[in-house]
Amino acid sequence: MATKVNIRDVAKAAGVSVTTVSHALSEAHSSRVNARTVEHIKAVAGDLGYAPNRMASGLRNQRSQILGLVSDEITTTPFAGAMIQGAQDAASEHGHLLMVVNSGLDNELERQEIRALQQHQVDGIIYARMFNQQVSVPGELSGRPTILLDATSEDPALSSVVPDEFAAGESAADLLVAAGHRTIAMINNEDDIPAAHGRLAGFRAGLDRQGITLAADRLVAGHPSTAGGREAALHLLAGDSRPTALFCFNDQMAMGAYQAAGHLRLTVPADVSIVGVDNLELIADGLWPGLSTMALPHYEMGRWAVLKLLDELDNPGAQRVQEKIACPLVERSSVAPPKG
Amino acid sequence: MATKVNIRDVAKAAGVSVTTVSHALSEAHSSRVNARTVEHIKAVAGDLGYAPNRMASGLRNQRSQILGLVSDEITTTPFAGAMIQGAQDAASEHGHLLMVVNSGLDNELERQEIRALQQHQVDGIIYARMFNQQVSVPGELSGRPTILLDATSEDPALSSVVPDEFAAGESAADLLVAAGHRTIAMINNEDDIPAAHGRLAGFRAGLDRQGITLAADRLVAGHPSTAGGREAALHLLAGDSRPTALFCFNDQMAMGAYQAAGHLRLTVPADVSIVGVDNLELIADGLWPGLSTMALPHYEMGRWAVLKLLDELDNPGAQRVQEKIACPLVERSSVAPPKG
Repeated sequence: MATKVNIRDVAKAAGVSVTTVSHALSEAHSSRVNARTVEHIKAVAGDLGYAPNRMASGLRNQRSQILGLVSDEITTTPFAGAMIQGAQDAASEHGHLLMVVNSGLDNELERQEIRALQQHQVDGIIYARMFNQQVSVPGELSGRPTILLDATSEDPALSSVVPDEFAAGESAADLLVAAGHRTIAMINNEDDIPAAHGRLAGFRAGLDRQGITLAADRLVAGHPSTAGGREAALHLLAGDSRPTALFCFNDQMAMGAYQAAGHLRLTVPADVSIVGVDNLELIADGLWPGLSTMALPHYEMGRWAVLKLLDELDNPGAQRVQEKIACPLVERSSVAPPKG
Repeated sequence: MATKVNIRDVAKAAGVSVTTVSHALSEAHSSRVNARTVEHIKAVAGDLGYAPNRMASGLRNQRSQILGLVSDEITTTPFAGAMIQGAQDAASEHGHLLMVVNSGLDNELERQEIRALQQHQVDGIIYARMFNQQVSVPGELSGRPTILLDATSEDPALSSVVPDEFAAGESAADLLVAAGHRTIAMINNEDDIPAAHGRLAGFRAGLDRQGITLAADRLVAGHPSTAGGREAALHLLAGDSRPTALFCFNDQMAMGAYQAAGHLRLTVPADVSIVGVDNLELIADGLWPGLSTMALPHYEMGRWAVLKLLDELDNPGAQRVQEKIACPLVERSSVAPPKG
């Protein structure tokens, strides 16, 4: 490697921040910087031999300003768009492009794709999963700048970001108790995944704090689909001592709970209040009445992952962080006080 | 430009197809080719100076083997994943990577992103929209290899691919008539877009062919949402001379039609058959009973666009094509013969 002028050298010489240089030299963002400053920065960059052609400069300074995002199953996941958009917006704001590849669930293909991204000289990789899970990161990423998105690992060298599942469960409990409910059930996902454990633990803790116990016969687990939610709700809502409110693992299970209520001639929310998690707008907005639900922060997680990756690229010694992002309540019309 | 060895030269010298060379030299796909053939191709490529490092070879032969995909709103569109996956699978099978950028609906940002992709030396661009529409392509793409995905333009120099909206409407008519329905209504999208015109024209033509006229009072247009479909269906299904079957512009409107039927104490499909378009699995699988619907071919369109782009990159004089891809029926349980 001969000279290795990087963006930090330009920023230092020009007396401005790295972000300002990045914007000034990016066709996509130069309008964000004062025109005279752009000229000054371009002159300094020219003097130092920092080239605007990213491909050429990538070979020289070893930064291509391309980030890779490796995900598992974007086809089947309605959340993929928001995660990718959040990552891309953050990348674009900092003069980087995002290259997205998907592996389905094929581990060997995934390793091949990571090597292909590395051949394209990506600066770092966001390793994304389409739901919160613990992963073993492929060996190809070992020692390379990597951030986990909607995933965690046991490797303390990797920063990661996931939703705050526990807090989502707590918020659901708070919402239903505040509306006056005391006889409350939960329809959980039967899968052994962090979201199922975290939401249940938070929900239970939120109820406990209000002196309410989640009775064993008011906790049913099923397949995390509309059919799974429907079946669980038909079971919970049958009989005389039915709960007045249901917290559902996700919006799809909540859609099934609406179907069960309709089948039993119960009205939402007058006869039964229902809360979901996800804020899948197709469902939460589409249901009648609209579903109150905790929004999974996919856009925000995508942004966080890119910003943290850029931070670790600029500062390889930066502290690793295991971040949890809040799931805000989106109130629609599926919660009301219990009758009587 | 000194020598300009490209993949076709390697294929010719090695006596194999371009695809085989692409696979053999791609870390991601060399396993698809016989190991001895891979060795032979690598030797030929080495002799000719065709390098495996894509970034370096991109500078030499002016092919980076990166394709760009520019879309409008992947965040808000559940179809985005399938379109991107189709494009990416086709790119990957041919040794290319796909770089995805999204502009929201900001025209200026879109132009800046296209220039950024061009700075990264992408070989060509897929210009995608998230629903079938006519577009004016930004000047930055003029004269550059470009394929329109889920969009058309008046420029005969641009190949494009969209769903066959007319045939989707015809298939819906065929399905309902074959089940025995004669009193049939359509809930259309009120927007002035190709999908609304095409599906209606095809539906009308399909009924006409069976000697059935779509009466004016059996055609209602509304907002293409669950609420829009519900409102239209409440109108159509009220009264005694109600239709026995509804063709809905999309699955969301069909979900609204189910809600209207439930509200009116009508059962799907015993009292009213319902057909949608999209095959949005969250909805079509989630509804109870499952929704029979025409699948929009997003995955296939994404594939087609990449394959056509690669064809035009290899053969700049290749014929331009305005392709329409069929929307296959996905049968679930929402269509039955009419009562009586």
